[in-house]
Amino acid sequence: MNSHVMTDRTKKKETTVVQKYGGSSLADEVKIKAVAEKIKKALNNFGKLVVVVSANGNTTNQLIQQAKKINPKPLARELDMLVSTGEQVSASLLTMALHGIGIKALSVNAYQLGIETDRVYTEARIQKIDRQRLSVCLQRHDVLVVTGFQGITGDNEVTTLGRGGSDTSAVALAATLGCDCEIFSDFDGIFTVDPRLLTKSKKLSHISYDEMLEMASLGANVLHSRAVEIAKKYSVHLRCASTFSDKGGTIVTENYLEAPVVSGLSVMRNQTQITLSNLPQRVEQNKAVFAVASAKNWNIDMISIIQINNHLDIAFTVVESVIDDVISTYEDVFKQDKNVLIRTQSGFSKISVVGLGMKSSTGVASRFFSALSKGGINVKMVTTSEIKISVLIPDQQLEKAVECLSEEFELCSE
Amino acid sequence: MNSHVMTDRTKKKETTVVQKYGGSSLADEVKIKAVAEKIKKALNNFGKLVVVVSANGNTTNQLIQQAKKINPKPLARELDMLVSTGEQVSASLLTMALHGIGIKALSVNAYQLGIETDRVYTEARIQKIDRQRLSVCLQRHDVLVVTGFQGITGDNEVTTLGRGGSDTSAVALAATLGCDCEIFSDFDGIFTVDPRLLTKSKKLSHISYDEMLEMASLGANVLHSRAVEIAKKYSVHLRCASTFSDKGGTIVTENYLEAPVVSGLSVMRNQTQITLSNLPQRVEQNKAVFAVASAKNWNIDMISIIQINNHLDIAFTVVESVIDDVISTYEDVFKQDKNVLIRTQSGFSKISVVGLGMKSSTGVASRFFSALSKGGINVKMVTTSEIKISVLIPDQQLEKAVECLSEEFELCSE
Repeated sequence: MNSHVMTDRTKKKETTVVQKYGGSSLADEVKIKAVAEKIKKALNNFGKLVVVVSANGNTTNQLIQQAKKINPKPLARELDMLVSTGEQVSASLLTMALHGIGIKALSVNAYQLGIETDRVYTEARIQKIDRQRLSVCLQRHDVLVVTGFQGITGDNEVTTLGRGGSDTSAVALAATLGCDCEIFSDFDGIFTVDPRLLTKSKKLSHISYDEMLEMASLGANVLHSRAVEIAKKYSVHLRCASTFSDKGGTIVTENYLEAPVVSGLSVMRNQTQITLSNLPQRVEQNKAVFAVASAKNWNIDMISIIQINNHLDIAFTVVESVIDDVISTYEDVFKQDKNVLIRTQSGFSKISVVGLGMKSSTGVASRFFSALSKGGINVKMVTTSEIKISVLIPDQQLEKAVECLSEEFELCSE
Repeated sequence: MNSHVMTDRTKKKETTVVQKYGGSSLADEVKIKAVAEKIKKALNNFGKLVVVVSANGNTTNQLIQQAKKINPKPLARELDMLVSTGEQVSASLLTMALHGIGIKALSVNAYQLGIETDRVYTEARIQKIDRQRLSVCLQRHDVLVVTGFQGITGDNEVTTLGRGGSDTSAVALAATLGCDCEIFSDFDGIFTVDPRLLTKSKKLSHISYDEMLEMASLGANVLHSRAVEIAKKYSVHLRCASTFSDKGGTIVTENYLEAPVVSGLSVMRNQTQITLSNLPQRVEQNKAVFAVASAKNWNIDMISIIQINNHLDIAFTVVESVIDDVISTYEDVFKQDKNVLIRTQSGFSKISVVGLGMKSSTGVASRFFSALSKGGINVKMVTTSEIKISVLIPDQQLEKAVECLSEEFELCSE
């Protein structure tokens, strides 16, 4: 439990908290009732609860599949109308379960609560939440069950916030209310390494916003990175914990004492390296390469540029799924320059270590590369930031690399 | 096709029409695409279409079942939040199908369109529809796909209109637009007798609002009676036809030429007769019997009151499901009057014939009873109105009674 707010029981009873429950926590009637009991228990500690819910189980994916059978390229506006229904089902069912155990609860959707977003369907951003309406609802009910993931534009169009958007809904509500936020899922908290990748992985008691942001964008599937951004901006204290256990979870906060040099390790698979070599050394060429990528909305990563004599070599990584488009596009861009070679190599993974402690420690990079070298890992590319180091390595060496780095930076339990 | 409006093609192209598609017409991807094609074809005849959809297939029942597993007595407000999602799924999927074949379409829900209702959750009544918003949407799109069955209160609470409420949504939209309304379902139109009851049943080419109202309230499952009321009030011409055939269907209108003496026959099963005998002949007692029924919301029907000497016998029918409650309630009401006898007898059906022609014909009742008498049908109770006669008969004689009356009043095809 987040210790900075809850010093004694009296104070707790006056406090509001936002809780978010993920789709697998609401997958069936039994789980929905269990969540209701958990909320009832939380009312011993908090005066009011705002509970944000995702669509239960696999609903969103099923709806999208059904849509694609009807129209392979549905308009984003209609997709949002469609998938936003899933959260409303969860919200009303959970509210019924709360009524069943005597809790004064109310379900509310995005337009009822005035969760206003921009107009970017399927990836909308919350612009404001009607604090007044929220207060009125909370005065009359002990628990407000809010549809996560969805919003409404100024002219009443339904939007959704993208994958993991319910996290963002929850944090935005906590920011509006100036209270803490608890994110419940199947996981006990945030781990040094994805437990599916490393069974000995260690649960973190704390992690900073910045580390969490790096880890989220590096492939860790725990928290929506937009949610972490808002939490950081409005200093919302987050706790990530398991729905069906009372373990403490992980606190996400601005800073914490005794941050280790490396807090976590993230992995992204299915990376392909693109190399454009013998580019004539002109600024425009260089710009064209990235302008095209940006126009095409490819998420390009791990860029390295090397100058050899009068020529440039540019290498970067993309996900495998866009590779055909990348090749044909650059063949077209450079069809006048016969010297330019376009090469692609697939089968790579990106592995990154993240740690706030890197800022103040020296020799981290050296430890990192010597650990990989001892393991015989073949490093293809490197990028670094103030709090992370990433390398591109062959897929088949991923397991070994995770093992070497986890040992070096004490990311394992026991 | 309703002949009073569509005299030539040019005129048709300027006309708007409301079409309603029932849940079984939208049960899967194939059917949704077929409905889209039907709408495309209709655009040859109409300038704009407002298409009202129900939840697809069995969605509403499934959601209610799920709710009852979580809370056997869910609040009506939460039930409406839950089941209103079904229509939004249908609306967006159908809109995607329309986009797939190049139609400019938009899905809109009750909130977006301003379909305002009272606050009677699960049985709300439409109070007004925002004509301005409807016009703006129709200017920009050729087809507006509207979620049926749902509404919104003045303070943004989600409501639903009760069983068959999508018919009501459709007729209310047609009334707002001053245009015709077509109700599509699995049936070719309105039949003299439910075809499941009498295979030789005959499709009606026309039926009047009043006949339709009687038939709807007498158990014919074709049109929501509230929809017919609105159609009558605003003179909306209705056509009921099959989604997947081009047959003409049945026109529901104010009056039509050559109305037969009897247009249709309806049946309600599972009727129980309650008899309260030896009631002291005081006005208050009499009133108490019905006041209690009204407070309990029992739908009491076919009342008959007989005075014998100084005592009253009151008999009426209710559906079997409330019978236990009825008995215990009246035992309580009359616990001081030891003479009062409360008897119940189950296993009855109510059979009714309806016809606008009854108003101007004589001898209908005589033909009715003599037909039943020839068939050896045992009549327990009778009620009549200007355009209908109903009798209560034993369940096991129902089939025979349908046969006798259908023959007498020429309700069969061939």
